Amino acid sequence: MSAAPNEPVLLRRDEGRVAILTLNRPHAMNALSGELIDALQAEFDRLAKDRSIRCVIIEGAGDRAFSTGHDLREVASTRDYAFHHSLLTRCSAMMLSIGRLPQPVIAKVKSVATAAGCQLVAACDLAVASDKATFATSGINNGLFCGTPSVSVGRNIGPKRALDMLFTGQFVDAATALRDGLVSRVVPPADLDRETLALASHIAAQPPEQIASGKTMFRKHMEMNVEQAYAYATDFMAGAIQREDAQAGIDAFVNKKPKPEWKGK
Amino acid sequence: MSAAPNEPVLLRRDEGRVAILTLNRPHAMNALSGELIDALQAEFDRLAKDRSIRCVIIEGAGDRAFSTGHDLREVASTRDYAFHHSLLTRCSAMMLSIGRLPQPVIAKVKSVATAAGCQLVAACDLAVASDKATFATSGINNGLFCGTPSVSVGRNIGPKRALDMLFTGQFVDAATALRDGLVSRVVPPADLDRETLALASHIAAQPPEQIASGKTMFRKHMEMNVEQAYAYATDFMAGAIQREDAQAGIDAFVNKKPKPEWKGK
Amino acid sequence: MSAAPNEPVLLRRDEGRVAILTLNRPHAMNALSGELIDALQAEFDRLAKDRSIRCVIIEGAGDRAFSTGHDLREVASTRDYAFHHSLLTRCSAMMLSIGRLPQPVIAKVKSVATAAGCQLVAACDLAVASDKATFATSGINNGLFCGTPSVSVGRNIGPKRALDMLFTGQFVDAATALRDGLVSRVVPPADLDRETLALASHIAAQPPEQIASGKTMFRKHMEMNVEQAYAYATDFMAGAIQREDAQAGIDAFVNKKPKPEWKGK
Repeated sequence: MSAAPNEPVLLRRDEGRVAILTLNRPHAMNALSGELIDALQAEFDRLAKDRSIRCVIIEGAGDRAFSTGHDLREVASTRDYAFHHSLLTRCSAMMLSIGRLPQPVIAKVKSVATAAGCQLVAACDLAVASDKATFATSGINNGLFCGTPSVSVGRNIGPKRALDMLFTGQFVDAATALRDGLVSRVVPPADLDRETLALASHIAAQPPEQIASGKTMFRKHMEMNVEQAYAYATDFMAGAIQREDAQAGIDAFVNKKPKPEWKGK
Repeated sequence: MSAAPNEPVLLRRDEGRVAILTLNRPHAMNALSGELIDALQAEFDRLAKDRSIRCVIIEGAGDRAFSTGHDLREVASTRDYAFHHSLLTRCSAMMLSIGRLPQPVIAKVKSVATAAGCQLVAACDLAVASDKATFATSGINNGLFCGTPSVSVGRNIGPKRALDMLFTGQFVDAATALRDGLVSRVVPPADLDRETLALASHIAAQPPEQIASGKTMFRKHMEMNVEQAYAYATDFMAGAIQREDAQAGIDAFVNKKPKPEWKGK
Repeated sequence: MSAAPNEPVLLRRDEGRVAILTLNRPHAMNALSGELIDALQAEFDRLAKDRSIRCVIIEGAGDRAFSTGHDLREVASTRDYAFHHSLLTRCSAMMLSIGRLPQPVIAKVKSVATAAGCQLVAACDLAVASDKATFATSGINNGLFCGTPSVSVGRNIGPKRALDMLFTGQFVDAATALRDGLVSRVVPPADLDRETLALASHIAAQPPEQIASGKTMFRKHMEMNVEQAYAYATDFMAGAIQREDAQAGIDAFVNKKPKPEWKGK
């Protein structure tokens, strides 16, 4: 249930303003043990207050898996309902934290993403997959319907394709995941690291307050009816125009000046 | 408005734990007469209480149509509002029953599915189509906007593509239906029977209480906001882990035992 | 901020029962100045009362752009919050008016649709794009998150692909826009005018009250839960069957008569 001695279950390295979080349990297919869930939550809590980081990538260590979901050894270690409920509650809170972070979060998927590992891909704002990556909500094969994964997966790919994955537990390939909206980009395996970092760096170079407040607004209005959503987005945008970065950006566009350096204001 | 003498409008045959329902009005393109709607409802009511059946396939008799929707001869037989309202109310209730059944329901579409026939495909949990199948919400061509079909079709394929189908009444092919999410799988015509039965048998071999409760949970949480959905799914899943099948399945996975026989508990 | 002298910012020509609105600021990439927004609103208000027009096409003048969204010169002309809030409020109201018009509205996209220009495509009921057309929510490149565009774009293409467009501001091609549901059809550039007019004329020849009431019903029920939606659509459809056009259309179908002339009743 833990990483190798002296090896943390979650690694972080920063490339410029991009934080790269590595699920670091390769011997266990990067399964989301309670320890790893808590480590992700702690890192998200740190990132929520750290405006020097502008984009986050989540990747799995090793070549075998992005993540295969909950650590079934840990799940099997007890029949205590309170233990399982706590584990799942922390996992769901961690998944919801991704949508609340000011930074866009990108899942980088090299290989297998199953069950809560597939959920983690779905819960991220963006996802870049190798064209060799595969996805499944495979809990049902082990006797357990992927309930919490179905929340984020269903909201990405719609009912018909989601129920097919949930009932069968079968794998879908990256092209299918892209068509259905589970991932936002697919690239050749050799380009995955470079393309994902390029995408993250591109986003990290955008005006950060616009990105942060825009992300929050988007996730809120998507749960309103369209009239409420427009009223809310209209107020948001009228305010966003007043910000220094928007004023500088629009001025640069109109007066053919070089792109300004964003101040995050 | 009825099947040939002595020929029921709905047939049922079981293959193991899979019930196959055949819309049996091939001379009338398997149109959904009131009699056929009521027969489907009666069969769904039976299946809801029959846990020996684990998956349901709906198919159309003959090669010409899955179903072309309401029986327009029956609709034209009267101008009585109460008659039409009753017919549509029973049809809508039947469609909603599919989502409430404990068993996954698969539409098997060999050829044409139009109007309420297309709605029936959309209302099923999964749909497997021959690559020769075609789909339309074609009521508008006969002067009648496909109102009730638009509920399920819109929830499968989104507003842009749904309104295109609804306003034009034009046919879309199986590849388009798959891309848009109206069906979940497309196969060559020669493989349709075998592939659909294989899919149904695969699902029928899954732990049935997990499938049944998972299906109910999925359809409920998809109409909640994401935070409510996660709270609900978390409680669901903590309970699901305690079940005998989940315990046995996880134990088999962790301890490399053969897959257990599911007990439905 | 205005068209060339004596040249209105919005043109209208009618082809039979199809009204074609041309965003007529080609020198400014058909940007949606306040004047053009107000002209669109005024035209929509007229069309809402004009049942002789059965379908509306919106196109951009010239070859360079469908529309590049708000006129940034106008936006940059003041830092007055009330001015910007008014501009955005009128723009959002105009976008919402499209969904409330009795006529289906088709965006015809020959080239570039960005920011509120991309929003206008998303807000239309249908969209036909040249396979050379490109789409972006590119405000972020000028320091301004595409807040109001994200309402309609998000409801067309879902969260993963929408956030990718919103955070990066990068262009997507027509095939991607079709796959994701931002447009409903893609055609070769040489066929765009003819195919779009053929589509509009086909829709204009449908029974207009069925189309108008069906469109309203669809947009309403898509924001209900599925049970409410079915109850509402059932009542709608029982009423729609009683209408003269439905009675005539069904009678023609059943009795193999030629298609009736729709009376709009």
